[in-house]
Amino acid sequence: MRILGVDPGSNITGYGVVERVDSCIVHVAHGTIRTPAGQPLARRLAMIQCQLREAIEAHRPDRAAVESVFVSRNAASALVLGQARGAILATLGSHELPVDELAARQIKKAVTGAGAADKVQVQTMVVRLLGLSQVPAQDAADALAAAICRAQMGRLAELDVRVRSRTRRRRRLVRPGRTS
Amino acid sequence: MRILGVDPGSNITGYGVVERVDSCIVHVAHGTIRTPAGQPLARRLAMIQCQLREAIEAHRPDRAAVESVFVSRNAASALVLGQARGAILATLGSHELPVDELAARQIKKAVTGAGAADKVQVQTMVVRLLGLSQVPAQDAADALAAAICRAQMGRLAELDVRVRSRTRRRRRLVRPGRTS
Repeated sequence: MRILGVDPGSNITGYGVVERVDSCIVHVAHGTIRTPAGQPLARRLAMIQCQLREAIEAHRPDRAAVESVFVSRNAASALVLGQARGAILATLGSHELPVDELAARQIKKAVTGAGAADKVQVQTMVVRLLGLSQVPAQDAADALAAAICRAQMGRLAELDVRVRSRTRRRRRLVRPGRTS
Repeated sequence: MRILGVDPGSNITGYGVVERVDSCIVHVAHGTIRTPAGQPLARRLAMIQCQLREAIEAHRPDRAAVESVFVSRNAASALVLGQARGAILATLGSHELPVDELAARQIKKAVTGAGAADKVQVQTMVVRLLGLSQVPAQDAADALAAAICRAQMGRLAELDVRVRSRTRRRRRLVRPGRTS
């Protein structure tokens, strides 16, 4: 299973691809997408989509992981982040990639063992876990961390969803009998 | 000049195309993009992009107009709206359409004469101004209203920007002489 992690941002978007091979998580690629500040927003969002599309076509992931947003931030910054996220999610959706939204604490805990770890600790542990020879940029490290977290969840998480949806389906089938 | 107005929404996105022919504003097309509620967000955003792309390719606008967001709304709804906006703006940007963000009051005033007009008044005036035989859906009417507002601004608004940027360029040319 090959996973693409994305760390959305309107100025810098990080991405990282890892592959789960049996019990190992192997580094495939990572990078950052920077957009020129002087350009109009619509052009910058189109550039993010274009470069993310290139990364998807180059590395062919099976699914994607994106950090979920802590919505108690202020409305203006939620809008700005939302716009970058929207462009990114649409690109993932157009490639029919299943997308997992993971909480920041969950990602940090998976990578460093501590949900309150800082950015540098995440960066350091990403280098160690993937055996990288160079330290990736912070946004790319965050994207790799999201991908590692999803890879660690492995097939168990998918099984869980399947079991739950089967239970729900069964309940739905039972309900009409009860009410009639 | 042919203008595409868009009213972004994660459930329903409205669009409308008008053309300015001399002093007249002529209706070209309008419609709504609905996404199935059960689908994942990434797929729904990809569907919005796909259908908006089809509308752009069918009607070939020269520029676009989108309502600017009143950011004092709560952060959660700003994020949701931001995501739909991001997908839409990226599509406009990838078609290299210049995008004008217009305030809601400005759009309402241009169409009804009152900045505090309600949705029904906007809908009624859009029908009247464009001589439509049927009342468009509310989101399509809002999108047509944004396009009408931009069309009324006509070439004057562009001239204004050009004059301002020329003045700035002149200032920039003068400044080194002053400081040296």
